[in-house]
Amino acid sequence: MDTKVQQKIGLKHGSGGRAMRQLIEDVFLSLASPVDGIGLSALDDGAAIRVGDRWLVITTDSHVVHPIFFPGGDIGRISVSGTVNDLAMMGATEPVGLTCAVIIEEGFPRADLERVVASMRETAKEAGAPFVTGDTKVMGKGQVDGLLLNTTGVALADRVVSDAGLRAGDLLVVTGSIGDHGMAVMARRHDLRLEGDLRSDVAPINGLVRAALAAGGEDVVAMKDPTRGGVAGVLHEMAAKGGVGIVVDEPSLPVNDEVRAAGEMIGIDPLLVANEGKAVIGVRARSADKVLAALRAHPLGARATVFARAIAERPGAVILDTGFGRRMLAEPEGELLPRIC
Amino acid sequence: MDTKVQQKIGLKHGSGGRAMRQLIEDVFLSLASPVDGIGLSALDDGAAIRVGDRWLVITTDSHVVHPIFFPGGDIGRISVSGTVNDLAMMGATEPVGLTCAVIIEEGFPRADLERVVASMRETAKEAGAPFVTGDTKVMGKGQVDGLLLNTTGVALADRVVSDAGLRAGDLLVVTGSIGDHGMAVMARRHDLRLEGDLRSDVAPINGLVRAALAAGGEDVVAMKDPTRGGVAGVLHEMAAKGGVGIVVDEPSLPVNDEVRAAGEMIGIDPLLVANEGKAVIGVRARSADKVLAALRAHPLGARATVFARAIAERPGAVILDTGFGRRMLAEPEGELLPRIC
Ligand SMILES: Nc1ncnc2c1ncn2[C@@H]1O[C@H](COP(=O)(O)OP(=O)(O)OP(=O)(O)O)[C@@H](O)[C@H]1O
Ligand SMILES: Nc1ncnc2c1ncn2[C@@H]1O[C@H](COP(=O)(O)OP(=O)(O)OP(=O)(O)O)[C@@H](O)[C@H]1O
Ligand SMILES: [Mg+2]
Ligand SMILES: [Mg+2]
Ligand SMILES: [Mg+2]
Ligand SMILES: [Mg+2]
Ligand SMILES: [Mg+2]
Ligand SMILES: [Mg+2]
Repeated sequence: MDTKVQQKIGLKHGSGGRAMRQLIEDVFLSLASPVDGIGLSALDDGAAIRVGDRWLVITTDSHVVHPIFFPGGDIGRISVSGTVNDLAMMGATEPVGLTCAVIIEEGFPRADLERVVASMRETAKEAGAPFVTGDTKVMGKGQVDGLLLNTTGVALADRVVSDAGLRAGDLLVVTGSIGDHGMAVMARRHDLRLEGDLRSDVAPINGLVRAALAAGGEDVVAMKDPTRGGVAGVLHEMAAKGGVGIVVDEPSLPVNDEVRAAGEMIGIDPLLVANEGKAVIGVRARSADKVLAALRAHPLGARATVFARAIAERPGAVILDTGFGRRMLAEPEGELLPRIC
Repeated sequence: MDTKVQQKIGLKHGSGGRAMRQLIEDVFLSLASPVDGIGLSALDDGAAIRVGDRWLVITTDSHVVHPIFFPGGDIGRISVSGTVNDLAMMGATEPVGLTCAVIIEEGFPRADLERVVASMRETAKEAGAPFVTGDTKVMGKGQVDGLLLNTTGVALADRVVSDAGLRAGDLLVVTGSIGDHGMAVMARRHDLRLEGDLRSDVAPINGLVRAALAAGGEDVVAMKDPTRGGVAGVLHEMAAKGGVGIVVDEPSLPVNDEVRAAGEMIGIDPLLVANEGKAVIGVRARSADKVLAALRAHPLGARATVFARAIAERPGAVILDTGFGRRMLAEPEGELLPRIC
């Protein structure tokens, strides 16, 4: 008897690591069909389809974060930021339309719903992204926990940036401190003492990305936002898709003190933790300074820094240079951080 | 103290009737911003935004149907059909891209997931609609019941059809029998004896709609699919938005015998029950025969018929002519049919 028949979906299949990637490749990739552009099979932040001389960019994310209100943000702000940022990661910084699909548990307080919707409205305004349509479903008490959102984004772009464009010699920039979102949610969930100082970084960064693209032009060759799976997950994808090795200069990574402290308490490396307002940007070395300057001139990019470089050796591998020595950074397996976004 | 603060969301807010419309108007309409075209505030089946000399059409739906497998279909087939059909209701019969966002309960059988995905794939193929991107989240056991889907669709169209175009003298066509989907799901859920004969009508009808548009051209003036809220809900919206009254010739409505029988057992009028493979189409009277002939020539439109007409009197009202007399057909309130789609 085929044991596959009895296989169950586990929390690891939603954690942004290897187990999730495997499930997507084994099950959802079968939905792919050829398109003119970047389709499902590219497994990029979204799709980009040729329409005349432009690109139609589409991305979707559901959000199930728990609790729905946390230090620095809420589920509404994540849902808009996540979608705006995935569009931006494809090079599309001017959203044409967002969708708002909500699934609500019977008995959910209307005041909380209104607060979430207000947050969505403000975040969309911040991003210059108009909501154009939506859907509302209600499930019985106990059939769903609170409130779930799905936001899909659509944009047009003249040029797209995939996550597969790295080649040896390219530099990798991170736009700011890492690990803030995931640590803030975890701390709130576990009632950690540090909580007061931890705040999610959740924000729409399409304006920041616009500045980087304006400065770097064609020399911006790869982008990805380090959400589930964290920066480690992004580096593994970029290395595998670009056919390069990546060497990370760990000491240069911006990590807030509270995030480092919380990470030590909980036992999780900030490199594995979700961010909701950051990008990892691959740049041809000759344009790195220009891109860095543009990022730093933007309020959301003040701490932008080069933290890694692509090499020809060891394609697919991510090597961590700790300052004391080198070790391999494994692909996240599926760390048990359910409902982090 | 403001009692609103203590208000809770109820099942009626998801049932497609007056209560849901009110919630959407009171809470979600605040997300609307002006767009060049049909935006959120039109509350149509989707949005249509001017892009050059064409329209970018966007629609989204989450699906929470229970059980996920039912006679005639499953949650995957609904999710693709629902989105393809909402695009078609806007006049966009050639989807450019679909998204697939899944939320899965920990412990969900992988074999069931594969079965649903296979159904999505086949339905998308039937509709000629490519999946281009997606998202996968997992929630802990007991935090969500089984499997939820969201499918967003994007298309380009040369001409759009709103749900607001009726004027006095127009005729209303329904493309086939009514009430099949909702009755089939209810019967399966309640283990009604009739079940064997009841089958959901769930299907993508973009091909059928394409035929109607080709035949009727500019004389097809309003379209809407009678999902939650049923045909009664659609007629109320079309009457209110068009500023017309609508007179329904009840005896001419196609209703399958088993649906009628189940409706009598459960005590629900098929006019209030969800369909997932039907359209209500408003046509200028002079083109009704042509449109009807085109619909009937298509396998999904064999039982298409004119069943109502728009009148100048009593704008916003829906009047049911039973053959024995006339009565007002009330707007559905929010019949308690949770998780019907
Ligand atoms: N259910 C699914 N169906 C089709 N494609 C999917 C599905 N789930 C994920 N994918 C694809 O897999 C890739 C990875 O998805 P993932 O959700 O990790 O990306 P992301 O949205 O950028 O990250 P996050 O969701 O953490 O913000 C994307 O290309 C996405 O389109
Ligand atoms: N949460 C929401 N945010 C923004 N707009 C919404 C929301 N829920 C519904 N709407 C809007 O309200 C209108 C009615 O939505 P509804 O879901 O009933 O339409 P539908 O998808 O055609 O029907 P069904 O969901 O039963 O298939 C649509 O214009 C939709 O865009
Ligand atoms: Mg992303
Ligand atoms: Mg994302
Ligand atoms: Mg809907
Ligand atoms: Mg509709
Ligand atoms: Mg719909
Ligand atoms: Mg995603």
